Amino acid sequence: MKHIYMIGIGLIGGSFAIDIKEHNPSAKIYGIDINEAYLDESLALGVIDEKATLEDLEKADLVIVSIPVDVTVKLLPTILDKIGDNTLVVDAGSTKEAICKEVEHHPKRRNFLAAHPIAGTENSGPKAAISGLYKGKTNIICEVEKTTFKLQEKALELFRAIGMRIRYMDPVSHDKHIAYVSHLSHISAFMLGKTVINKEKNERDIFDMAGSGFESTVRLAKSSPAMWTPIFKQNKENLIETLEEYINNLQQFKELMQQDNFSEIFNEMENTNYIKQILNGIK
Amino acid sequence: MKHIYMIGIGLIGGSFAIDIKEHNPSAKIYGIDINEAYLDESLALGVIDEKATLEDLEKADLVIVSIPVDVTVKLLPTILDKIGDNTLVVDAGSTKEAICKEVEHHPKRRNFLAAHPIAGTENSGPKAAISGLYKGKTNIICEVEKTTFKLQEKALELFRAIGMRIRYMDPVSHDKHIAYVSHLSHISAFMLGKTVINKEKNERDIFDMAGSGFESTVRLAKSSPAMWTPIFKQNKENLIETLEEYINNLQQFKELMQQDNFSEIFNEMENTNYIKQILNGIK
Repeated sequence: MKHIYMIGIGLIGGSFAIDIKEHNPSAKIYGIDINEAYLDESLALGVIDEKATLEDLEKADLVIVSIPVDVTVKLLPTILDKIGDNTLVVDAGSTKEAICKEVEHHPKRRNFLAAHPIAGTENSGPKAAISGLYKGKTNIICEVEKTTFKLQEKALELFRAIGMRIRYMDPVSHDKHIAYVSHLSHISAFMLGKTVINKEKNERDIFDMAGSGFESTVRLAKSSPAMWTPIFKQNKENLIETLEEYINNLQQFKELMQQDNFSEIFNEMENTNYIKQILNGIK
Repeated sequence: MKHIYMIGIGLIGGSFAIDIKEHNPSAKIYGIDINEAYLDESLALGVIDEKATLEDLEKADLVIVSIPVDVTVKLLPTILDKIGDNTLVVDAGSTKEAICKEVEHHPKRRNFLAAHPIAGTENSGPKAAISGLYKGKTNIICEVEKTTFKLQEKALELFRAIGMRIRYMDPVSHDKHIAYVSHLSHISAFMLGKTVINKEKNERDIFDMAGSGFESTVRLAKSSPAMWTPIFKQNKENLIETLEEYINNLQQFKELMQQDNFSEIFNEMENTNYIKQILNGIK
């Protein structure tokens, strides 16, 4: 794969570009982004070799789409319209149902592979792009059977080269489970940040009292609203259910405190310590 | 300070012992713990030099109390009864009001310094003790004026030697603010862990989908229930208020989703991104 087009060159796209270039030095990386400053930055950083536009996609061997998920839904049919017969298009969106649905009847559906690399940091933009971001990380691939064999193979080769573990899943299950293990964490962090900022906004000194525990728990509240608003919108139904369960658990914890039932609070925490084994599995 | 007694030799006490020994190699570190296995472990690890009992405290130059806060409240009067006239006693509890209240009229009140080192990890026990845990961390000291000058000075010297920044605060304010910047994070992590475990308990595969964001947000749910239950109990009133605000914010976020008001959700997140500046201040 020689001509590689990155649509969106922020943290996700930029990190892909860096890793691809490392494993395939003869590849030429083209950047397409609505944000001209991002294009200039990523050129200056050497993340891309050249600027390009959607009109150039006919020449692409590979197109990686890492833009907000609402824009992906809008733009993906146009991208598929413009590519060549042997071009592989991969997206990297945090939701999969709406994206797969949107292109299910597209004549070039078999050129598209729906993916969700579970990787990232709370930072955004080309400057946030880092080498090795995907090493050892999971990549969820949806509806793999809808992509042609040859292009499936190309995609898997690429993911293997940059060190990703592959998991296959249908888009509906993906969106349901990712609500729990990723999207809810973002809401909990944003609302925790909001609660503390609202309370302490006039007392900057108070943040001297915050330690690494607070930092860890609210870290995701630094995430980009432009990226996350459309994710929450597309995964609204699952997230409302998830949030209700979370709120109920918090409510119940509060009631246990009000009833002075601290032995039950102890049990709740002890049961949840099981998260240790789960987190060991993540590493 | 030559004879130093650690009451409680888990993560907090053990890490103090390691740092004190490093800065004061001639000091002898004695360990007192209700858990005999902890004593053996910390002896084997070299965290303490010798086992001791409360009856030995008369000979102590310094006593550091790092045990669950309910036990501190019960035990502190006895500790003060047993120490010598020039012994300094420092506690390390995450709550300060109940502890200060308990000893306010004790004849040896002036030998006690109420402290809360904002440091730790989610791990516990002597094996969790690490060198340099306190470097650059904040230590909140309450009611400093109630400790004799000479012992204040000794304590400050020690904290400076191991690299801590000192902040002074009254115990009521301490407990109120720490509810927001520390205790709430623990509840949010425990309940997030619970929500996800309950939902996904029969689908271990799902945790393959969890990434570093989830890990960061639930990390504190690995914390010790034995340590945290009494903290929540002692800080109950503040925590109920804090939890109510957090639940309201989550509820409101859910309602914005139900109303499809994603422009307001964008604004909420953008406002909370201000946490970046706050977290930069923590580092």
